[in-house]
Amino acid sequence: MLPTGFRGAAVDADLAKGSRLDLALIVSDAAGMAGAMFTRNRVVAAPVALSREHLRQTSGMTRAILINAGCANACTGPGGDEDAMQCAQWVADAVGCDVLEVLVFSTGVIGEKLQMANIERAVPDLCAQLDTGASTVDAASRAILTTDTRPKVIERAIPLQDGGTAQLVGFAKGSGMIHPDMATMLAFLLTDLDHADPSHVYLRGAVMESFHRVTVDGDSSTNDAVLLWSSGTKQQPADDKGFFKALSECTLHLAKEIARDGEGATKLVEVEVRGGETHDHADNCARAIAQSLLVKTAVHGCDPNWGRILAAAGRSGAEIDTHKVKVGIGEAVLFENDEPQPANEAAAAEHLKSDSVRIWVDLATGPCDSRYWTCDLSADYVRINADYRT
Amino acid sequence: MLPTGFRGAAVDADLAKGSRLDLALIVSDAAGMAGAMFTRNRVVAAPVALSREHLRQTSGMTRAILINAGCANACTGPGGDEDAMQCAQWVADAVGCDVLEVLVFSTGVIGEKLQMANIERAVPDLCAQLDTGASTVDAASRAILTTDTRPKVIERAIPLQDGGTAQLVGFAKGSGMIHPDMATMLAFLLTDLDHADPSHVYLRGAVMESFHRVTVDGDSSTNDAVLLWSSGTKQQPADDKGFFKALSECTLHLAKEIARDGEGATKLVEVEVRGGETHDHADNCARAIAQSLLVKTAVHGCDPNWGRILAAAGRSGAEIDTHKVKVGIGEAVLFENDEPQPANEAAAAEHLKSDSVRIWVDLATGPCDSRYWTCDLSADYVRINADYRT
Repeated sequence: MLPTGFRGAAVDADLAKGSRLDLALIVSDAAGMAGAMFTRNRVVAAPVALSREHLRQTSGMTRAILINAGCANACTGPGGDEDAMQCAQWVADAVGCDVLEVLVFSTGVIGEKLQMANIERAVPDLCAQLDTGASTVDAASRAILTTDTRPKVIERAIPLQDGGTAQLVGFAKGSGMIHPDMATMLAFLLTDLDHADPSHVYLRGAVMESFHRVTVDGDSSTNDAVLLWSSGTKQQPADDKGFFKALSECTLHLAKEIARDGEGATKLVEVEVRGGETHDHADNCARAIAQSLLVKTAVHGCDPNWGRILAAAGRSGAEIDTHKVKVGIGEAVLFENDEPQPANEAAAAEHLKSDSVRIWVDLATGPCDSRYWTCDLSADYVRINADYRT
Repeated sequence: MLPTGFRGAAVDADLAKGSRLDLALIVSDAAGMAGAMFTRNRVVAAPVALSREHLRQTSGMTRAILINAGCANACTGPGGDEDAMQCAQWVADAVGCDVLEVLVFSTGVIGEKLQMANIERAVPDLCAQLDTGASTVDAASRAILTTDTRPKVIERAIPLQDGGTAQLVGFAKGSGMIHPDMATMLAFLLTDLDHADPSHVYLRGAVMESFHRVTVDGDSSTNDAVLLWSSGTKQQPADDKGFFKALSECTLHLAKEIARDGEGATKLVEVEVRGGETHDHADNCARAIAQSLLVKTAVHGCDPNWGRILAAAGRSGAEIDTHKVKVGIGEAVLFENDEPQPANEAAAAEHLKSDSVRIWVDLATGPCDSRYWTCDLSADYVRINADYRT
């Protein structure tokens, strides 16, 4: 169910390959406050440039968003900028709002132009089908996928002081080009709560602990965006903790689902580093392990190859004393007291067979912890990406 | 042919899987000056710790080196340190020198102990077989390989003022865990020239432009080492340019051979970045492209996917103006004047079919250039690493 105040729809506009939903429209009955975080890539797609500018000019007040899969509208020159603006204009005309109140998001192949005729034809269809039901969320969450194998949706209720509840609904896409800053992902978080987060402190905080901590392949894209958008129909509770908690749970769930659905992935991998001397040490160590192709291929092969984990930790810049450091997989300790613990390898190999695995390092040099999420690296990742455009 | 003053041998000591050479010994008739660069990984293998300490204590004067494949003797605790020292002692006793004049190098699986009985038995055999012929270089270069598919050898003659020549012979191994700082690689450069490089300025300069510019998978190992060792039997020419040129050619050749022979690789990829505002911009941009799994899988699939090249450049931190930047593959320009150049994609796809390909970006923001070398990423990389230990 969409939060109150929102309606949505999705259609097959023949923008992505095959018979599938590939264009979604979400409309707020009244302009509602939206905040977004975009890719830090210096090369940004036309829809990112447009949406960033519109949010700036309206201070976030947004009536509608249009999202397409199949084409990123990135590196498409001035023509690409015009196409993005034209899409926004069609939506504005259909919805009856200012073009600045419309945001557009695209994901798919870089360097190809949008099929504008298809979009022009689809926008009236989308407006005619706008609905609030649960199937709408499902349809929208499917319309934004690229190489994802399944939709990623999450919902949380936020208790209000009057005994009622507000809703927070999130959906996201992301599978390849996934990296802390931020991943080839789009994530949309819709709420009816009129929350007080004008400077997007909550959004930044939640993203920092979730989308900024997943890596599939170390690449980041031209189109990444996370949008938090409120229809404002429910009043804010006395404190914002409930809202921040719901938001954090939603972003963390979606981030982990993105890692789990990484291209070719068979497992979600959680990397936990404890006892770093500084937060940077802990973060760098966790990221180095999560990014290591050798760790990720070993996990794929269910090989408890702790030597690769320790080697990745060793190149991360974190202080490591081999007399203190412990390395483990699941509950099994594989390296301790400067010695391998081969007796525990069988238990670790067994743990690696499950579809959610945990790799951990205790640096034992200080108080700082960190977690990252990634997936295993399979031959399918290569197959998917060696002929993505063909 | 080994340079004058050196003798060498290699045997199958049953340290690596299968019937193959896996232990090499090189001896200098008199102690000669050696300089080395080791991994920057904080977790270093026992042989690295030993060799670093011996070089420090002798100021580089070295009589013999022992190199094994199959076992890295890394993360093996105090027992691993004792094993490395025992190997050096056996060589010192057999050769008749101080143990400090012996260096040891290991490569292979992390966390396993050396099979000491095999090494003790092999050292006398090695000493009995010491020889100077070309087959010795070939044998030594084969004995140090792990997942490499072929040996990597290079030889250069350095003209002397008296009309004679000195020799520089290099051999290296490296295939996975390959990254700028420095890669799971071992490289040995032997010369009979009594060159003047006490502070290893030449070695550092040559390594900076070669081994520090190759990446296969972004991982760096616990055992990496590059050794430059002179028997000192030929006197130095008037200027050192000839020696530095020969050294640079050898290290560059070996570095490119390592990238070409990357695990599962079918192609050598040269990434050239021109026109960076600073050297860091150019280097970071070239490295980001060379490390991008999406670029490497696209190259594997012969897909001229310039969008991924530009996206990787965009996340590298280099200043990018899409109106100025050019992206190309081979001679084909694929992005220019803020627009894709689809007419040139066929030529780029054709270029990608060869076994040495060139990817380039002209940032057009300044005078700084950079080059990195990598390989394509294939499903075989995953297969090799998913069951390396089994």
